[in-house]
Amino acid sequence: MRIAIYGYGNLGRGVEAMAAKNPDVSVTGIFTRRDPSSVTPVSGLNVYPASAVTDFGGDIDVVINCGGSATDLPATTPMLASSFNTVDSFDTHAKIPEHFAAVDAAARQGGNLALISAGWDPGMFSLARVYTSSAVPGGNIYTFWGRGVSQGHSDAIRRIPGVADARQYTVPVPEALEAVRRGECPELTTRDKHLRECWVVAEEGADRAAIEQAIVTMPYYFDEYDTTVNFISEEELLRDHSGLPHGGSVIYNASSGFENEHTHTVEYSLRLDSNPEFTAGVLIACARAVHRMSLRGVTGCISMLDVAPADLSPLSGEELRHLML
Amino acid sequence: MRIAIYGYGNLGRGVEAMAAKNPDVSVTGIFTRRDPSSVTPVSGLNVYPASAVTDFGGDIDVVINCGGSATDLPATTPMLASSFNTVDSFDTHAKIPEHFAAVDAAARQGGNLALISAGWDPGMFSLARVYTSSAVPGGNIYTFWGRGVSQGHSDAIRRIPGVADARQYTVPVPEALEAVRRGECPELTTRDKHLRECWVVAEEGADRAAIEQAIVTMPYYFDEYDTTVNFISEEELLRDHSGLPHGGSVIYNASSGFENEHTHTVEYSLRLDSNPEFTAGVLIACARAVHRMSLRGVTGCISMLDVAPADLSPLSGEELRHLML
Repeated sequence: MRIAIYGYGNLGRGVEAMAAKNPDVSVTGIFTRRDPSSVTPVSGLNVYPASAVTDFGGDIDVVINCGGSATDLPATTPMLASSFNTVDSFDTHAKIPEHFAAVDAAARQGGNLALISAGWDPGMFSLARVYTSSAVPGGNIYTFWGRGVSQGHSDAIRRIPGVADARQYTVPVPEALEAVRRGECPELTTRDKHLRECWVVAEEGADRAAIEQAIVTMPYYFDEYDTTVNFISEEELLRDHSGLPHGGSVIYNASSGFENEHTHTVEYSLRLDSNPEFTAGVLIACARAVHRMSLRGVTGCISMLDVAPADLSPLSGEELRHLML
Repeated sequence: MRIAIYGYGNLGRGVEAMAAKNPDVSVTGIFTRRDPSSVTPVSGLNVYPASAVTDFGGDIDVVINCGGSATDLPATTPMLASSFNTVDSFDTHAKIPEHFAAVDAAARQGGNLALISAGWDPGMFSLARVYTSSAVPGGNIYTFWGRGVSQGHSDAIRRIPGVADARQYTVPVPEALEAVRRGECPELTTRDKHLRECWVVAEEGADRAAIEQAIVTMPYYFDEYDTTVNFISEEELLRDHSGLPHGGSVIYNASSGFENEHTHTVEYSLRLDSNPEFTAGVLIACARAVHRMSLRGVTGCISMLDVAPADLSPLSGEELRHLML
C-alpha cells in the first residue's frame, strides 16, 4: 500500500515513524504547505509542495491527511477526497455531521473512499462505546482523558499576553475514576471528572497573577475545572514536559438479568507515551482498510465504526483466526 | 429481528434474558433436546423439540446456537447453517479452523451466513487483540482470565470419585498482572499468570486427601497451576458460590518511534457478574449483524473480526456518529 503524508506536524511525523513499522506500507512522499526545502524528514522521504499531490495520482493508494481539525481538515479532506482515498483524524465532535456530509459528497463524486475521525477519541474509544453498549444495552458510558498533554489547551494558554510557552495536562480525578470502576454509576459534573494542570513559562516582567487569572477564568477551556497553574523556566519546560503523552479510559457500567440483578463493568484504557505516534498507527491501519474496501468498490465517507477489524490488520483471515481469535 | 434459541442451558437462558433488553429482537421459540413440557422458560416463550426448528423456516431470521463447544456445536452449527443464518460461541481454540471449514461449506451451500466463536474470549478479547496490534505492530499480547468461574474446570472436579459438587475459580496472579500493566513485558509461564481456587463438596465418607491429590495433579486442568482446594458443605456452596461471574483483561504492550523510545499500554478489561448473560448479549448483537449482512447478500462463515461494529448496534449510522463517535 502506497500512502502520502499530507501535512508534516506532530501527526505527520508520527505517520512517518509508524510507516517504518509496517512492512506493507510505502510512503510516496510528504506533502507540505511549507517550503519543501525547509523540511528534513527523519527517514529521508521525498518532500513536495502540498499543491503537487494531484500530480501523484497513480502513485498513491491513500492520502493520510495530517492537518488540524480546526481549520485544515474541513477544507482539505473534501478537496483530497475528490481525487484520492483518504483518512483523517477530524475530532471536532459537534461538527462531525457537517464534515461527514462534505467529505461524503466529494468522495462519491470522485469515486473514492474517505475515512474520517480516526485515532483514539474519536476512534478506539468510539469502538469501545459501540461494542459494549451493543452487547449490554442501557448502561452508562463514562470517558476519562489523561493523564496527558492537551495540545488545544496548551495553545490556548500560549495565546495569553505575557506567556512565552506552556504545557497543559488533563488529569482524571482519581476518586471519580474509582467510583466508576467500582460500578457505582455516579452522576459526575465536568469539574468532578477532570483536573487541569498548567506549566507556564512567563515572559520576563510579565504579570504572573494576571496570567494565572486569565487561565483559570478562560471560558470553556478552564472555567469549569479545578485548574492549577505552575510557573517554570523554559529549561524546566523542555526538560520535564517536552513529551506528548496521553491516554484515558472508556468505562461502561450496565446490568442484565430479568431483575437487572447482574452488573457488568467493561473498561478500555490507553496509556500512551506518544499521542501522535499512536494516533498515526491507527491512521495507517485505517488506510489499509480504506485501500482494501476501495478495491471492493466501496465509496463515500465512513468512520472506524464501518470497518471490519480484519480489514485493519496486515494478517490474513486464516492467520487472524489462528493467532487472534 | 426474529431469533430462535437453540439449546436451553445457562447460555440459552442468558439469551432469553438479554432478548428482553433488546426491543428490536423477538424470540420465535426455544428449541430443546429435552422434553419441551419439562422446560419452563422464565418469560413464557414457546418451547419446541429441537428437531422441529426446520418447520419454522419462515419465522426465524437467525438461530442462536446455545450448545456446548465440546460435542454440540461441531455437529449442530453446520446442520443449522445449511437452513438458517446462525450465531454460535464455539470456543475450542485449536479446533476453530476445522469448525470454520465445516460451517462455511454448509452455510454457502444453503446460501446462509454463519458467525462462529462469538462471546468475550473468543469474541471481545479477540477484537481487542486485533485492534491494538494493528495500530502498533510488534508488541506483546497478554490475556488474563478471572477472577471467575470456569465451568470446564468445575466439571472436571465433579467427575472425580467422591465429589458431590464443585466450583473452580480462575484467578490472575496480581503480581503478574501488575507487571504487565506497568509495561514491563515480562516472560510468564502458565503458573506465573493464574491461580486455580477450588471449592469442593465431598460425598459423605469420601477420602478428602485423595480428592485433593486427584485435583492438583490432574493433567492440563490443574497440574501446571498453583491450586488451592477448600472443602465446604453443599449449603455453603449454594450460598456463596452459586453465581457464574467471570472476566479478565487483554493487555497489549508495544513501542513506537524511530528508536522505539515510546511505549504504549492498552488494556481491555471485563468484570462480569454473569458470564452467560454477557456472552448472550454479544451473541444477540452478532445475530443483528448477521441478519443485516445476510440481507446484503453475504454468505458463508465469519467471526466477529469480519463484522463492522456499526452492524452490531441497533442505532443508525447517523445516531452512532452523533452519540458514540
